[in-house]
Amino acid sequence: MAVIDLAHRVPAHDVRAGALTLWRCAPWLRGSVVLAVVDPGVGTARRPVALEVAAADVVLVGPDNGLLTPAAHALGGPTAAVRLRPLPSRVAGVGATFDGRDLFAPVAARLASGEWSLPDVGDPLDPAGLAGGEVVMACAGPAGELLCEVLWIDAFGNAQLNTDGSGLGEMVQVEIGPRVVEARRVAAFGDLRAGEPGLVTDSYGLLALALNGAPAAAQLGVGEGDVVRLSTGRRAEGRR
Amino acid sequence: MAVIDLAHRVPAHDVRAGALTLWRCAPWLRGSVVLAVVDPGVGTARRPVALEVAAADVVLVGPDNGLLTPAAHALGGPTAAVRLRPLPSRVAGVGATFDGRDLFAPVAARLASGEWSLPDVGDPLDPAGLAGGEVVMACAGPAGELLCEVLWIDAFGNAQLNTDGSGLGEMVQVEIGPRVVEARRVAAFGDLRAGEPGLVTDSYGLLALALNGAPAAAQLGVGEGDVVRLSTGRRAEGRR
Amino acid sequence: MAVIDLAHRVPAHDVRAGALTLWRCAPWLRGSVVLAVVDPGVGTARRPVALEVAAADVVLVGPDNGLLTPAAHALGGPTAAVRLRPLPSRVAGVGATFDGRDLFAPVAARLASGEWSLPDVGDPLDPAGLAGGEVVMACAGPAGELLCEVLWIDAFGNAQLNTDGSGLGEMVQVEIGPRVVEARRVAAFGDLRAGEPGLVTDSYGLLALALNGAPAAAQLGVGEGDVVRLSTGRRAEGRR
Repeated sequence: MAVIDLAHRVPAHDVRAGALTLWRCAPWLRGSVVLAVVDPGVGTARRPVALEVAAADVVLVGPDNGLLTPAAHALGGPTAAVRLRPLPSRVAGVGATFDGRDLFAPVAARLASGEWSLPDVGDPLDPAGLAGGEVVMACAGPAGELLCEVLWIDAFGNAQLNTDGSGLGEMVQVEIGPRVVEARRVAAFGDLRAGEPGLVTDSYGLLALALNGAPAAAQLGVGEGDVVRLSTGRRAEGRR
Repeated sequence: MAVIDLAHRVPAHDVRAGALTLWRCAPWLRGSVVLAVVDPGVGTARRPVALEVAAADVVLVGPDNGLLTPAAHALGGPTAAVRLRPLPSRVAGVGATFDGRDLFAPVAARLASGEWSLPDVGDPLDPAGLAGGEVVMACAGPAGELLCEVLWIDAFGNAQLNTDGSGLGEMVQVEIGPRVVEARRVAAFGDLRAGEPGLVTDSYGLLALALNGAPAAAQLGVGEGDVVRLSTGRRAEGRR
Repeated sequence: MAVIDLAHRVPAHDVRAGALTLWRCAPWLRGSVVLAVVDPGVGTARRPVALEVAAADVVLVGPDNGLLTPAAHALGGPTAAVRLRPLPSRVAGVGATFDGRDLFAPVAARLASGEWSLPDVGDPLDPAGLAGGEVVMACAGPAGELLCEVLWIDAFGNAQLNTDGSGLGEMVQVEIGPRVVEARRVAAFGDLRAGEPGLVTDSYGLLALALNGAPAAAQLGVGEGDVVRLSTGRRAEGRR
């Protein structure tokens, strides 16, 4: 059994960032048991859970706080779920603050090894009642523009948007609050001139707002969760 | 043989932080060979050692600078020790500055694989002469208060104290230098209101000074090694 | 098959830093398949390649941008190379921005497992035409001094130079721009007094400019790629 680390740099307490990290990994998760922990509510009423996505042969283990459901939906949707029971193997005397170590990891390990199955680790839950849900893609605004959310600022400072860019032309107007940036759609970061804003189809199939060799998010003033508006730009229209 | 990374973020040269990191892991180290390196004295007179803790079936390999002994004591105390001999497998021409790579890791690997045993890797030492020792728990001050040391500021900014809080009431006065903070004992970080100081039994069984969702250490002005005084608070007494 | 992580902290877009990281690891790479990715030109004309170094039984996989060649030369020089072909296993819809995940890693994995060999993954290239080359060692300046390049600032702030220090005396004058520092050659960082500049033969066999327990690079004002001049110092000469 191979153990693979997906990510360790989710910001503290940031369930949304953790959920999107896992969601981006979905196409590569088939046939695995996934352990995920961003768990500010550990020890409170939030439920410890394991979800099965039968279509993808995946089980996800962690807190029921919206961390797991976006990936589960991307894989086909949860088909079964259990509320985890406490483990007798818990080290005596430790507090209630680290279910990642004391509950989720040992459960995930034994599910992955085949020693246990879902009914062994908890009591059935209705998957429809799990916290969180699907990641929503960009929608059309009143003037036909695309209202996008910044899903993620990656390690290079590119701003991933919740759209694959279908229907947009070669030149795109990007409205960031009161500011308008003209961005060129290119296949690779290196196709942009130094300092030129661009929109690149990123390694997850989504548009990323980028500057070649520079952190676009910091330089253009966008952060995770911000809304930006995309519309096919005038310059590109003029060319046709 | 599984290789598990315990930690990679001990601050440079900070033997105390490294020793406490290893000490916190002690309950999960049984039946293993442990390699640890925080080694500012590498290449000088400090001895390279391997320690055996027979009660826990553990061998610890690293520098004799106090890094290994707190964990060894937590596991039952060192029952044998050797001073490591240089290895003939050392790559030619490299300096004396990285025993972690050139001595400790190859020795630990071969002890873990069973290829070598303690007498194969060095000459016997008296374990009583090893640097460092046990982690001392908080002691009572002149007025019955608990004089605690801040052992660790964790990644969330919680300040771990060297006490499990036995004998303290529900409300605790925490003296940080001239400042006094009233902290409520709770089971989980999420049981605190936003901005409310609390004392949580952490995942190692020790009290941690916390603020829900915020870095307590930075906001309350405590650092590793600081002394704080705990005493049962007036409000809690008034309630009884 | 063991998978070993060599490094994950190469600065974004810094091909030189990545190439030197791999080059420093060369003595420990024999008998392996090496995957390396620092790839600002991903998706553009830069070639995806695999290089074989027959003398060391090593294959290196990554972009042909100078990242791989210093290590290949340190191991004996590339004896064969191929330009990688696209993989049919690529996930549909993802962009062209992450050959590390979509091309280099799957190719390296299958070369390492023995499932594929070099002719299976690409079309032959002349190794002489690969980008980059050997790391050049320090050369003598007009007055017999050693003109060194700072190859690397390590995690402790030591400045690694491209010389093993042959021919230099015990005391060395180090010229950093207009500033001259007298540095003592010692075997270990701990042999230096607090704040005393020193030159230590580091764990790669090269001289490192160091201060015991302090970041020499920041305090002496040198950075990666800077040139420093070394000459045997007056104090040491006076002693003889």
